[in-house]
Amino acid sequence: MSSEVARASLPLALTMGEPAGIGAEIALKAWLAMRHRSRPFLYSGPAELLRSTARRLGLPATITIITEPSHATACFSETLPVLNFGLKSNVSEGRPSPETAANVIESIDICVGLAMEGQVAGVVTNPIQKSVLKAAGFKHPGHTEYLQFLAGEGFRATMLLAGGGLRVVPVTIHQSLASAVQSLSSGAIVATAIETADGLRRDFGIADPRLAIAGLNPHAGESGEMGDEEIRIITPAIQELRARGITVLGPVPPDTMFTHRARASYDVAICMYHDQGLIPLKTLDVDGGVNVTMGLPFVRTSPDHGTALDIAGKGVADPGSLIAALELAGQIAHRRVHEV
Amino acid sequence: MSSEVARASLPLALTMGEPAGIGAEIALKAWLAMRHRSRPFLYSGPAELLRSTARRLGLPATITIITEPSHATACFSETLPVLNFGLKSNVSEGRPSPETAANVIESIDICVGLAMEGQVAGVVTNPIQKSVLKAAGFKHPGHTEYLQFLAGEGFRATMLLAGGGLRVVPVTIHQSLASAVQSLSSGAIVATAIETADGLRRDFGIADPRLAIAGLNPHAGESGEMGDEEIRIITPAIQELRARGITVLGPVPPDTMFTHRARASYDVAICMYHDQGLIPLKTLDVDGGVNVTMGLPFVRTSPDHGTALDIAGKGVADPGSLIAALELAGQIAHRRVHEV
Repeated sequence: MSSEVARASLPLALTMGEPAGIGAEIALKAWLAMRHRSRPFLYSGPAELLRSTARRLGLPATITIITEPSHATACFSETLPVLNFGLKSNVSEGRPSPETAANVIESIDICVGLAMEGQVAGVVTNPIQKSVLKAAGFKHPGHTEYLQFLAGEGFRATMLLAGGGLRVVPVTIHQSLASAVQSLSSGAIVATAIETADGLRRDFGIADPRLAIAGLNPHAGESGEMGDEEIRIITPAIQELRARGITVLGPVPPDTMFTHRARASYDVAICMYHDQGLIPLKTLDVDGGVNVTMGLPFVRTSPDHGTALDIAGKGVADPGSLIAALELAGQIAHRRVHEV
Repeated sequence: MSSEVARASLPLALTMGEPAGIGAEIALKAWLAMRHRSRPFLYSGPAELLRSTARRLGLPATITIITEPSHATACFSETLPVLNFGLKSNVSEGRPSPETAANVIESIDICVGLAMEGQVAGVVTNPIQKSVLKAAGFKHPGHTEYLQFLAGEGFRATMLLAGGGLRVVPVTIHQSLASAVQSLSSGAIVATAIETADGLRRDFGIADPRLAIAGLNPHAGESGEMGDEEIRIITPAIQELRARGITVLGPVPPDTMFTHRARASYDVAICMYHDQGLIPLKTLDVDGGVNVTMGLPFVRTSPDHGTALDIAGKGVADPGSLIAALELAGQIAHRRVHEV
């Protein structure tokens, strides 16, 4: 088997995420939906959590503990392959505990390690409960930042969210709106846009991606009438991007940027703050949204919802976003292999 | 004729808006679409502008100059009634000039005057070009602020936008995002929410309106992890509103607030800044959005788009939002009369 064929058949690795949330339920449901038609994936986490969830919710899934990632491919259509480890504490649905935080992080570490060694085609992460990880001593603001840390020096993680026919990349992410406004810089916009253009070429196969750069203020500031960040920060960034040969438009008035008509004019919206991108994305498509981390040395996607503690254990969780994340990770991995 | 019958048959008054924009075109198109089925409206502005627009675009509309608003009702199905005045300067399509600013303001003044005297059922405003009015010495930041000024002391104009099954009311409006964040206060949220609840009862016939109060920060701050405005400002406002017997939920994480599912849980979204409300609204429905000003002593609506200078004179302007604004103004006027 050539190395390209070997890589093309590698499984994806799915993390457990917060065990008190819906991670196990949607993993099982995704496997049931995808077992016959997609790139295999393995689950990194406690087999007992999957088994008890399947039993309680009456999901007709079988689980098999494997010892090597490569074993996942052969059995995937029959059973959900699991790289097993034990839970550090009992799990109470809907009530996350810092005592299982080490498990949650262990699962991420294992999947990223396998991806960096080339043993899996990419990492798909189930949602985590940041406040609980933080209480247990976890120092990173979120998944994306932690993955960048694991990737090591020289990588810059950039979060792209896709769904409902829209792709958005926020320049500032998990910080207060006041600090997002204050910390916005031409440098950050340029770096994010370059990373995004590279990612769209490499991972989405778009040869000359069109980037729409959002304004920050109402009506993009109306020539400085309502804020001058467009003049001071955003327009200079646009000029620099054009000088580098990237196709950009903007600053685009944020409120008209996401209409059906406007969306047809670009491949990705570069947004100045979290909700500027996340509001239209979730308004258009809450169930099938996917988060892609560009700029890392491995493929990584995740569903764009949270741990959904309020519906954990009820059997009503929708696996749509996780399925979309697994599918997109498979497509990106395929593209990267065939570009090499 | 009883006074109630007389008021129920009053026409609406439509302002001319920026003459270099699409105002005349959409006024003619709205009349063609509505002449047989809705409450009559009159146009306040230069008949010559309407006539030349109709001729150039080949719109089969006839225009009749009237001298009294009450004359509009009888002729509306046959001709568009106009309270005429002359243009101060020639109009060049797509190129607004400060020389016609006095006309634009005169039209607003006439319509508001008629509404306050009870000679028309309400005011519908065509879009204006703020920068040009400002250059001509106009001191008000926008339509809504000017209407509040005309209404006089004791009134507090509150802007509600409706479209795509969603209603939003921004607490802060036409100011930079930095200053919107800085100026946000519990008092402003409470005052806006009370005005909104009153308006939904009176003008929309919703007996016990449910208000969703948005957070300001990503994920509504995650218990202070990403900004503390939810704790310091928004939650105290929610407590005060509950104490006053208003049905409120929140602070709601902004990004999941406008999904199909979430929208079913409230009648109006109280938003902390312009784009938080305008982005989802326009993403859902750019052509049929309507702006309603609550808290004034007269009915006022407007389309939620701008002057569209780029397509002025081309005949492609969509009258959908103006038609929706005229229809909604008629419904509100009807409700106010039958409540009296």
